Amino acid sequence: MKMGVFGSGSVGQTIAARLAELGHDVMIGTRDVNKLKEWQSSNPSVKLGSFAETASHGEMLFNAVSGAGTLEALKMAGESNLGEKVLVDISNPLDYSKGFPPSLLVSNTDSLAEQIQRAFPKVKVVKSLNTVTAKIMVRPREVANGEHTIFVSGNDADAKAQVTALLRSFGWNDILDLGGITSARGTEAYLLLWVRMYDSLQDSMINVKIVK
Amino acid sequence: MKMGVFGSGSVGQTIAARLAELGHDVMIGTRDVNKLKEWQSSNPSVKLGSFAETASHGEMLFNAVSGAGTLEALKMAGESNLGEKVLVDISNPLDYSKGFPPSLLVSNTDSLAEQIQRAFPKVKVVKSLNTVTAKIMVRPREVANGEHTIFVSGNDADAKAQVTALLRSFGWNDILDLGGITSARGTEAYLLLWVRMYDSLQDSMINVKIVK
Repeated sequence: MKMGVFGSGSVGQTIAARLAELGHDVMIGTRDVNKLKEWQSSNPSVKLGSFAETASHGEMLFNAVSGAGTLEALKMAGESNLGEKVLVDISNPLDYSKGFPPSLLVSNTDSLAEQIQRAFPKVKVVKSLNTVTAKIMVRPREVANGEHTIFVSGNDADAKAQVTALLRSFGWNDILDLGGITSARGTEAYLLLWVRMYDSLQDSMINVKIVK
Repeated sequence: MKMGVFGSGSVGQTIAARLAELGHDVMIGTRDVNKLKEWQSSNPSVKLGSFAETASHGEMLFNAVSGAGTLEALKMAGESNLGEKVLVDISNPLDYSKGFPPSLLVSNTDSLAEQIQRAFPKVKVVKSLNTVTAKIMVRPREVANGEHTIFVSGNDADAKAQVTALLRSFGWNDILDLGGITSARGTEAYLLLWVRMYDSLQDSMINVKIVK
């Protein structure tokens, strides 16, 4: 499948490399492709392009831009290129302006995912993967044999089904549909707990398993 | 040990009954003791009193008042009665004014626990138990054989050690110290995720287990 990944940071690189490994035709969208030239030399099947080229390339899209940069990047991608595509929003609206631990740029009664959905009403935004570090996103079985939970939030049931299938291809088994896109408030706010767990355990290779 | 529990709702009742069962000398503090007369008839060892009487009675105190009512209740309890005691803050600053799911009255860069700590600097506030439903708080082994996580946050190490010992007496094994009282921002914000998990699973007898 043709995949477009916005963002050249570690999350974007990790998602793109894993998608390519699984046989997808992947392009990373970034402001400055030169930043990724060296990375690309060890990931030669991944194309590099502008945000607009990447939005046009992908049948499914991934937002791995920083929370603060997301809306501007998506505007550069262009509403017509985004169309009615599925956009997996992995980003967290973290504010590191006062150091660690970060706070959130948007929270409680709103979320970054909802901001994206309002700005691009036709795009099928699905929030997912934002609750774990990049390595776990794409290889969940490296932690606790994969026995832990990942969440999906979104307004479009078919889009969530497509994303759920993709998550299964990454190795996820325990996938909880939290409901509409407003439920991204929950997984984004969870970052305020995640950073404290990370700080206490001094380990980013962590996740939670819902038990009943 | 002499225990004082502020709040006559289901959390206060559940904590008080469990403490009494474990042999503690328990008083519930409430604005209107008449509300609890019937409940007391099946929990005869639990005393009823005003917030001030309960603060005076308890060597360890528990805040199970609603988030919105907490600071006023603690003012009624009285700074001199609260003294330098350990106060386990179980409350969440939930705002149901727009229905379900609730938002938070305070979040992100502050928390109810910090508001309490600022208002009563000598009190040893320990945030805990606010991430699970009342039944699980006091009987964690009723879910997944107790294999799930509870958090403590607070500025005083000895107070956290005392609360941790009490949690063990309830049946908790997996207790994570998140750090100072500001880390209560994490567990309070987690409620925004908890209400969505509850809504999706239609089950309040849930918790999370941290896996590595």
